[in-house]
Amino acid sequence: MKNVVVRNIDRADAAVIKRLGALGTATVHEAYGRSGLMKPYLRPVWAGGEAAGSAVTVLVHPGDNWMIHVAVEQCRPGDILVVGCSADSTDGMFGDLLATSLKARGVTGLVIDAGCRDVKSLREMGFPVWSKAISAKGTVKATLGAVNVPVVCAGVNVEPGDAVIADDDGVVVVARKYAGEVAAKGEQRHADEEAKRKRLASGALGLDMYNMREALAKAGLVYFDEPEKD
Amino acid sequence: MKNVVVRNIDRADAAVIKRLGALGTATVHEAYGRSGLMKPYLRPVWAGGEAAGSAVTVLVHPGDNWMIHVAVEQCRPGDILVVGCSADSTDGMFGDLLATSLKARGVTGLVIDAGCRDVKSLREMGFPVWSKAISAKGTVKATLGAVNVPVVCAGVNVEPGDAVIADDDGVVVVARKYAGEVAAKGEQRHADEEAKRKRLASGALGLDMYNMREALAKAGLVYFDEPEKD
Amino acid sequence: MKNVVVRNIDRADAAVIKRLGALGTATVHEAYGRSGLMKPYLRPVWAGGEAAGSAVTVLVHPGDNWMIHVAVEQCRPGDILVVGCSADSTDGMFGDLLATSLKARGVTGLVIDAGCRDVKSLREMGFPVWSKAISAKGTVKATLGAVNVPVVCAGVNVEPGDAVIADDDGVVVVARKYAGEVAAKGEQRHADEEAKRKRLASGALGLDMYNMREALAKAGLVYFDEPEKD
Amino acid sequence: MKNVVVRNIDRADAAVIKRLGALGTATVHEAYGRSGLMKPYLRPVWAGGEAAGSAVTVLVHPGDNWMIHVAVEQCRPGDILVVGCSADSTDGMFGDLLATSLKARGVTGLVIDAGCRDVKSLREMGFPVWSKAISAKGTVKATLGAVNVPVVCAGVNVEPGDAVIADDDGVVVVARKYAGEVAAKGEQRHADEEAKRKRLASGALGLDMYNMREALAKAGLVYFDEPEKD
Amino acid sequence: MKNVVVRNIDRADAAVIKRLGALGTATVHEAYGRSGLMKPYLRPVWAGGEAAGSAVTVLVHPGDNWMIHVAVEQCRPGDILVVGCSADSTDGMFGDLLATSLKARGVTGLVIDAGCRDVKSLREMGFPVWSKAISAKGTVKATLGAVNVPVVCAGVNVEPGDAVIADDDGVVVVARKYAGEVAAKGEQRHADEEAKRKRLASGALGLDMYNMREALAKAGLVYFDEPEKD
Amino acid sequence: MKNVVVRNIDRADAAVIKRLGALGTATVHEAYGRSGLMKPYLRPVWAGGEAAGSAVTVLVHPGDNWMIHVAVEQCRPGDILVVGCSADSTDGMFGDLLATSLKARGVTGLVIDAGCRDVKSLREMGFPVWSKAISAKGTVKATLGAVNVPVVCAGVNVEPGDAVIADDDGVVVVARKYAGEVAAKGEQRHADEEAKRKRLASGALGLDMYNMREALAKAGLVYFDEPEKD
Repeated sequence: MKNVVVRNIDRADAAVIKRLGALGTATVHEAYGRSGLMKPYLRPVWAGGEAAGSAVTVLVHPGDNWMIHVAVEQCRPGDILVVGCSADSTDGMFGDLLATSLKARGVTGLVIDAGCRDVKSLREMGFPVWSKAISAKGTVKATLGAVNVPVVCAGVNVEPGDAVIADDDGVVVVARKYAGEVAAKGEQRHADEEAKRKRLASGALGLDMYNMREALAKAGLVYFDEPEKD
Repeated sequence: MKNVVVRNIDRADAAVIKRLGALGTATVHEAYGRSGLMKPYLRPVWAGGEAAGSAVTVLVHPGDNWMIHVAVEQCRPGDILVVGCSADSTDGMFGDLLATSLKARGVTGLVIDAGCRDVKSLREMGFPVWSKAISAKGTVKATLGAVNVPVVCAGVNVEPGDAVIADDDGVVVVARKYAGEVAAKGEQRHADEEAKRKRLASGALGLDMYNMREALAKAGLVYFDEPEKD
Repeated sequence: MKNVVVRNIDRADAAVIKRLGALGTATVHEAYGRSGLMKPYLRPVWAGGEAAGSAVTVLVHPGDNWMIHVAVEQCRPGDILVVGCSADSTDGMFGDLLATSLKARGVTGLVIDAGCRDVKSLREMGFPVWSKAISAKGTVKATLGAVNVPVVCAGVNVEPGDAVIADDDGVVVVARKYAGEVAAKGEQRHADEEAKRKRLASGALGLDMYNMREALAKAGLVYFDEPEKD
Repeated sequence: MKNVVVRNIDRADAAVIKRLGALGTATVHEAYGRSGLMKPYLRPVWAGGEAAGSAVTVLVHPGDNWMIHVAVEQCRPGDILVVGCSADSTDGMFGDLLATSLKARGVTGLVIDAGCRDVKSLREMGFPVWSKAISAKGTVKATLGAVNVPVVCAGVNVEPGDAVIADDDGVVVVARKYAGEVAAKGEQRHADEEAKRKRLASGALGLDMYNMREALAKAGLVYFDEPEKD
Repeated sequence: MKNVVVRNIDRADAAVIKRLGALGTATVHEAYGRSGLMKPYLRPVWAGGEAAGSAVTVLVHPGDNWMIHVAVEQCRPGDILVVGCSADSTDGMFGDLLATSLKARGVTGLVIDAGCRDVKSLREMGFPVWSKAISAKGTVKATLGAVNVPVVCAGVNVEPGDAVIADDDGVVVVARKYAGEVAAKGEQRHADEEAKRKRLASGALGLDMYNMREALAKAGLVYFDEPEKD
Repeated sequence: MKNVVVRNIDRADAAVIKRLGALGTATVHEAYGRSGLMKPYLRPVWAGGEAAGSAVTVLVHPGDNWMIHVAVEQCRPGDILVVGCSADSTDGMFGDLLATSLKARGVTGLVIDAGCRDVKSLREMGFPVWSKAISAKGTVKATLGAVNVPVVCAGVNVEPGDAVIADDDGVVVVARKYAGEVAAKGEQRHADEEAKRKRLASGALGLDMYNMREALAKAGLVYFDEPEKD
């Protein structure tokens, strides 16, 4: 790994990001062929936060948040900062001062495969963060990493400029070149689900609505009217 | 394991379930001889949710939620759906469409030893879920399991028709045949605790109220007025 | 380990505890040389709780909360109760009756390296608890431990009379003899951060504010204007 | 839960247990319809141990191994002792003295959903144990549990007299009434696998041997001769 | 994600792989700028196994090992098979039949971000596997994934044809284009370490050998001849 | 925390350490009143290793092993090095070069609340290590910690000069001033156990040998000759 900062990255289209954000992570993940989902150990540090943006990526090392400071300068309005860490860490690498700086630059949120602190302030600021842990543990500024190189964050390889969508259900990443196609598929899926929701709410069964009965019988499912006796 | 659906199960008595639900998991667990408690990794997906019901059970496999669709049809008002999984999984097997369907059938909640998604919608719908993880990960519909057979969920063997009580403290299961007895014991315990609470609030010590001093001395507890010096 | 209760411990100064509590865990931890922080698996059982106090310590064994009852008597207004456990446990060793008793004695909160139950009541009472797990699992009263001896809780050795600060970011412990010095350093840090926060909010970069550019270049950080081609 | 010891249980057939043991856990689990497997966190405390037996079950509480002493008396030659614990625990509830006693009674091994100690001695004695943890943590003898009632151990509900097979791959449990049927199916599966192994060793492809190509194509799998270009 | 199999991938150079394998994971990881290391939860299923190869990659879904069968056909002598899974899973997706097939094709080992079974046979065959879990849990063949696309495995993004080195210390991945450079740097490092080892074995101190004393003093390290008194 | 190295510490008596080492961790832990045991996540990196020594302690930070180099100089023959880390880390902070240096100084082993690498070499050298993880992850040398101050390692507060005993069952720490007393108690316990072992091996029951039957009956244990029918 080289210690580089890449300055001029291509970004995911802002209009597409907005559409993806409106769909939410579950729908985007499905529309993307059930891909791009980060591990569920990443959780929002305050409930109800939502964010969507074009990824600025940063790679840090355990116990050291120096490169997050470097990454701030590379962020523009509409970006979301994605932090990968070279080994498992729960250190509190991000807090309210960095959030103040990112917010001032129009960044929509932070996704970090490590710890976060100053949770109360972040909630009051309305700055959403998805992290692996909440920890006040302080970090040093001694070791270089990289900015805007591909990083693995919570099990997903994130390229600079990928579209990132995050909400109460987690974080999903869509490659920039597929973002538009995924948004369109997701909107179709969303429309279909609205219709299904109405039918289910009125008492229809998924078994019938999805025509599952035949496939279940073919697979060998058997119904009994009472428990089998020994 | 056979791929069966058992249709006509005996259910726990609705009036007893209501009494158990009013007591809450901690009191029910104590009244049941400190039994029936699921592992604490099961957590409510939104805080403050409470549910009590007669168990409809379903066994699924990792990555596959087909049998939950099958189970919906077997649910009646006052039921709670309990999902066991044949291996560790965090996949998001349950979301707002299934919740809409269960709610339409009068189901009081879901307990799942796997993941759940659409948390925001579930909170807005007021449909309570206890799960092992929150994850947008989608699942397939390819492998059979079983409905209304005994399943192990978060460390407890649940029989169809058991009484299930769930709240912020977790989930407890009471065998149908003991449910009435446990409700009665729990109500007695609850009444006793109210009296104790008043005494403690006014400054009484548990040491005196529970007559612990003699037993502690007999067991060898010693008091010092200052730390022992090296 | 001897089964003792030490009655007359020296306590951290109440005025200093108040000042530390106002600073919060992250600032206190930094001002204490990045020391004293408990592991991040300790979490508040209800969000937003805050507590600061002088430690009364208790050592218990898995499945047994007898010594917590013993410890209550040793608590005075302004104390915080810190419970270490001799092996990993998630049992619900603490609930609303014990909280009622502690509150009646003016205790400010509980930190426990095990489980807690009655979360709903604790939130309604406004009694803050930091625990390893939420679990309704009941415990017995059969085995002695100790009160007001040094205990390790969530990775930190806590002496009776240490200052303990807890909030949404976790729990930090400051040795009694350093508490005043740490409060002073923390207040200085807090003042500095307020000034920094304003500058960052107006768009200043940490890279400039902290004079990092030279050190980064010296360490070998390189900037590119576009990604390196293969 | 009542504090009972059931003395005269029906046991799985010794000849059938022997046949199941010869097949190993993976084959038995498959032959049992992919059922009965304990969670993989249960591991042998020394590599290479194997055991098969008829289950004597015991339920204990965290930090307390009293009931294991009670259970020893109920064991006969060919039994395997299965210990469930009412809450998560890593305490070292079992060591070489208990193993000496079990070995003297002809017990084939121990499966415990908690900790084990004296690993070196157990290996030297050749007494196999599957546990959740290795820990020297001592336990008390203060709280009753039960012997020969159904217990959940590592995610499986075990009835007294079930057949239990354990090896390097883990632990699998077969209900007594299905044990013979499962042995027969397993032996058929084993014979089939031997034939397959020879073909695979000589270079045959599973894709051909299992006739997968058509199903894969139908499901939509596509082959490319070089990576797709962006 | 598309369901594709890429047939003709470029492979890492066999001679370079051999040199990397001789260095071992720790040296390769250091020579690669402390990059490319998989998470330490991946462990060898039998101690002492070592493997090095050019990666054939496969993406599977929880509970389903269909694509591993597909991937076998794409393997050539000197390859190592790397399996990523779209969500956390411990299922036993790989066993001795697949190992027989891979061995027949000259594959050097398997790295899988899920479970493995038939450990005893694998050890006897001398086929090395690094996995997240050992589990007899069987899987189905119902859902497509992909072969020879980039996959994230245990926290590292692996491209088809990357060099993969695995031993008792874990698994490290080197991008094909850097493999030769890393081998050269690693060999230099290895030679340096041999010299250092001799000096250290004869009693030299690292403090002197690495000239650390000045830097330590400058950073503020202070020596005392006895503990500070309170 | 101050960045200090304490040079002249008092050490546990070598003869006493030898006696404690001969007893093993389980017996020492029991003789010490069931105290001093480190968490069971600390495991030997190679099976069968045993070590006993007087503790030299070192506090490091995640991702940084600088202070281990500093600590080496403070070690004398018969010491055991105990490394605490200020936050959770699995980084490979220790490998064969440091082991070579420690071995040259007569150090008996290493206990580290973080990761270790070069496992194969350590086994070949016969240098025993107990660690939280095995990981090739490299570390930097940038941040100071402390040597020979009290450190918490795997849940135990270790003072410089404490007696540390480690084997396959884990790691136990005895305060220097109690070491002799604990050795004597442990030897008595060991002698008693030998006698018990013989009786148990000849078929005696612990129930009788420990006179448990009366206490069990008094506690309410009931025996049935067949399972209760529903």
